[in-house]
Amino acid sequence: MTKSVDHLISERAKSRVSSHFTSAPSEAPPSGFKPHPKPLLLSYGTPNNGFFPIDSLDINLVHYPFEHQDKKEARGESLKRLAASSSNSASNGKNGKAESYDNSVEVVRHTQDPSIVDLSTGLQYANVEGHKPLLQFTKDFIKRTHNPAHDQWESILTTGASDGLNKACDAVLNPGDVVLIEEFTFLPFVRFSDHAQAIPVPVKIDFSNESNGIDLGYLRELLDNWHDLKPNLPKPKALYTIATGQNPTGYTQTVEFRKQVYELAEKHDFIIIEDDPYGYLTLPKYQHQRPTNDSVKSDVTIDDYIANHLTPSYLELDTTGRVIRVETFSKLFAPGLRLGFIIAHASIIKAIKNYGEVVNRGASGLSQLAVNNVVYGKLGGVDGWIGWILKMRQRYSLRKDLLLHTIYQSEAYKQGLVDVIDPKAGMFVTFKIKFLDARPENEIVAKMKQALWKVINFGVAVVPGSNMAVDSKFSAARSNFFRLCYAPANDDAEIVESGKRLTDAILDFYNNGEKF
Amino acid sequence: MTKSVDHLISERAKSRVSSHFTSAPSEAPPSGFKPHPKPLLLSYGTPNNGFFPIDSLDINLVHYPFEHQDKKEARGESLKRLAASSSNSASNGKNGKAESYDNSVEVVRHTQDPSIVDLSTGLQYANVEGHKPLLQFTKDFIKRTHNPAHDQWESILTTGASDGLNKACDAVLNPGDVVLIEEFTFLPFVRFSDHAQAIPVPVKIDFSNESNGIDLGYLRELLDNWHDLKPNLPKPKALYTIATGQNPTGYTQTVEFRKQVYELAEKHDFIIIEDDPYGYLTLPKYQHQRPTNDSVKSDVTIDDYIANHLTPSYLELDTTGRVIRVETFSKLFAPGLRLGFIIAHASIIKAIKNYGEVVNRGASGLSQLAVNNVVYGKLGGVDGWIGWILKMRQRYSLRKDLLLHTIYQSEAYKQGLVDVIDPKAGMFVTFKIKFLDARPENEIVAKMKQALWKVINFGVAVVPGSNMAVDSKFSAARSNFFRLCYAPANDDAEIVESGKRLTDAILDFYNNGEKF
Repeated sequence: MTKSVDHLISERAKSRVSSHFTSAPSEAPPSGFKPHPKPLLLSYGTPNNGFFPIDSLDINLVHYPFEHQDKKEARGESLKRLAASSSNSASNGKNGKAESYDNSVEVVRHTQDPSIVDLSTGLQYANVEGHKPLLQFTKDFIKRTHNPAHDQWESILTTGASDGLNKACDAVLNPGDVVLIEEFTFLPFVRFSDHAQAIPVPVKIDFSNESNGIDLGYLRELLDNWHDLKPNLPKPKALYTIATGQNPTGYTQTVEFRKQVYELAEKHDFIIIEDDPYGYLTLPKYQHQRPTNDSVKSDVTIDDYIANHLTPSYLELDTTGRVIRVETFSKLFAPGLRLGFIIAHASIIKAIKNYGEVVNRGASGLSQLAVNNVVYGKLGGVDGWIGWILKMRQRYSLRKDLLLHTIYQSEAYKQGLVDVIDPKAGMFVTFKIKFLDARPENEIVAKMKQALWKVINFGVAVVPGSNMAVDSKFSAARSNFFRLCYAPANDDAEIVESGKRLTDAILDFYNNGEKF
Repeated sequence: MTKSVDHLISERAKSRVSSHFTSAPSEAPPSGFKPHPKPLLLSYGTPNNGFFPIDSLDINLVHYPFEHQDKKEARGESLKRLAASSSNSASNGKNGKAESYDNSVEVVRHTQDPSIVDLSTGLQYANVEGHKPLLQFTKDFIKRTHNPAHDQWESILTTGASDGLNKACDAVLNPGDVVLIEEFTFLPFVRFSDHAQAIPVPVKIDFSNESNGIDLGYLRELLDNWHDLKPNLPKPKALYTIATGQNPTGYTQTVEFRKQVYELAEKHDFIIIEDDPYGYLTLPKYQHQRPTNDSVKSDVTIDDYIANHLTPSYLELDTTGRVIRVETFSKLFAPGLRLGFIIAHASIIKAIKNYGEVVNRGASGLSQLAVNNVVYGKLGGVDGWIGWILKMRQRYSLRKDLLLHTIYQSEAYKQGLVDVIDPKAGMFVTFKIKFLDARPENEIVAKMKQALWKVINFGVAVVPGSNMAVDSKFSAARSNFFRLCYAPANDDAEIVESGKRLTDAILDFYNNGEKF
């Protein structure tokens, strides 16, 4: 049993009510009234599905990430062989298409299967919360992976993590409220807290290699002495944290660490907004050798993955209902879906729903049916979906290790000029420039700019840490890093080449007296 | 040349800036810097499209609305014939699927065709504004149908009309600003103006049969004597109008009427927010006979449709850049796409874009690619899309006329107890209860509730006008109507049956002394 969390909901959110002009009369019917057994509708402005131009959809899937590249290579090989033995190889396939798929999902206009969203439903107006089977999927998935410690939680779909974070801010932050944020973070969050007219306060990150991200000593000190340290600010209403594979640093908080943060949240009565866009991509530790596809091949079972690889969410510690977990399908399925979900206390979800009726009328039904019907129509539900995640995770592991291997082999690393943090999850690596002597903050910032130009000149795009600082002055002394992301590369060769260019650039930067 | 519209943009919108942490350095590069010819990306957190599980999509279309019903009937017939001549008819089609489509669009992972949104683009992160070809389509479509009178207009995609309206409110309404609204309206708009902390003021509707909707004399009087009539309110900042096939009344403003309203907007310096979700569904006048599929068959050419059937938008009169036109694909393609667009002055579109970066990160790419690739890959672009609209329009005309015919043939109509307004566009009909003598306002409201229960009891759902009143007290005297919508019915027979039940219910209501 949780306490009420009403005092944690913003006044703005509390003031909204939900109603619709097509609702049935609210007063009691007159005597003698009985509902008609088969009422007809002249009420809703919903076009009948017969007006929809799409009659059915075939969604053709790959069995594993990058299968299409393997197929292309295989086709290329067989074409080459054909070309060697015959001159008539061009007729193979019309317009490069006409591929036959053994792994398709057909979406029809009407079906009675309750686990499927058909076109007559998916293309129609729908609840802001989301279509039933997909909403149920998000709950079943959370129960399987991060079962909440209280039982008053609910789920709602969003149009992605950004939408989820903006809605979380709206639900809990009053104008003038303070929100604590990891000092380097997914910076658009500040846009959302600004929109709620809240005040962002950065929390130091511990940059040691065995760090959990947040500098816990700093956070405790700050909270316990808030009125002395921040005399003009109210005590924090919320903490925003990317607790697994933090963006940009890649750090992951252990469960023991989370328990201590959660204790602080209880003691000081603040909300935890847990953003977890890629935490399911857990990554084994680098093995000190050049990785191959085989060396990171997953022999992890789903149960083993959940029990021993996945870091528990704050939800699993949350007895009060003060955790808002923001998820997205962007990294595990595709960003263009604009689809995600939020798990939180039912009162908070209700506030988010009422806001959703203002700022967007729910996620695309087409996106919803694509995910839902792939998951239920092909992968086989929650565990099938986790199976897909394990394949993603395997590929990301390989990429991470390839990038780390390239850096570890570099001259710059061997000379101790750079360091790198091996992430336990996600898609980001902190790449530190290890200035060999202490120096003033403003010099670090200036040198990092020179280093960035060098890196760009050598042909790699990276994100300087300072670009992601909530308060670049506050964080200047800890800005000596670039965020590296191994997600966008087209293939493994690009990752290796990127790592080489990057470390060559930094070596050149040092050889040139820490200048461009 | 338009004047600047900056004074019409809200302070809230002006205060927002757009920036992203992955942007390149803004300062000048150091001397000796040259951009790399083939830079690699370790920057963006965008998963490579090789991580997307969908490899291709087949979108199977109908040639005209409700074709699937005709096909089903035809299949039913041929199955019956088969059953009569043979006992082996069940093998015809496996699981009811395996239909062969001659009207499909294939969406592949990669294409070089600039008019197509492929999967590697459509499933990826994208600009808030929308994918290029679809954004270009919205502009070409507007140029063809409602060419704006000034040349500083732009387009931006939305997640549907509601999102568009909320964004329009955010862009122009400051807290305390007044927005004029047709007294009966799409009521969620008030939620959006509330969200902008604006003050809604209803404008009387003229309920005569040849009305243009808004009571122009009332509006002019109100504006010219604003400070006397509304001493505590600032002059209006905006007018919200559904000018074609108004919701709920069905009225359409003629172009001459719009010119007079636009003159008032110029004189009193307010914005016109033109909401037009179904105005393309222009409807011929009822022909005083039972309509058949043939009698409303469209022999209208696209040029004729645009020149003589489509009512000009306020955009076409707008020399100042004060018109915000909100469109949606919900009624013409499908609501579940959550896809629409806004046409307005470039400064207003920029404000809307900055807001879009807060409240949702653009429309679903899957929805965008579905519409774009159907339009460009199958229908043949703008005129092909208008061709589809003409087919929709033909079907809606038939439905409208069937409903009107049923009402005109009813005993209640013949006895002069009810009246109905023949709409020139859209999907709504005003169904008036003609109380035969004058009566106090509160009695009208009470009687309409009794009539509603009767209608529900007879098995039809309708929307009472009072449910859609901005201020139900202000509009009580004009609340003696139901909104009828012929869009949701499954077939023509349902429309006829609904009309019968409705008119029978009202006859019974009168026969029972205007009581349930």
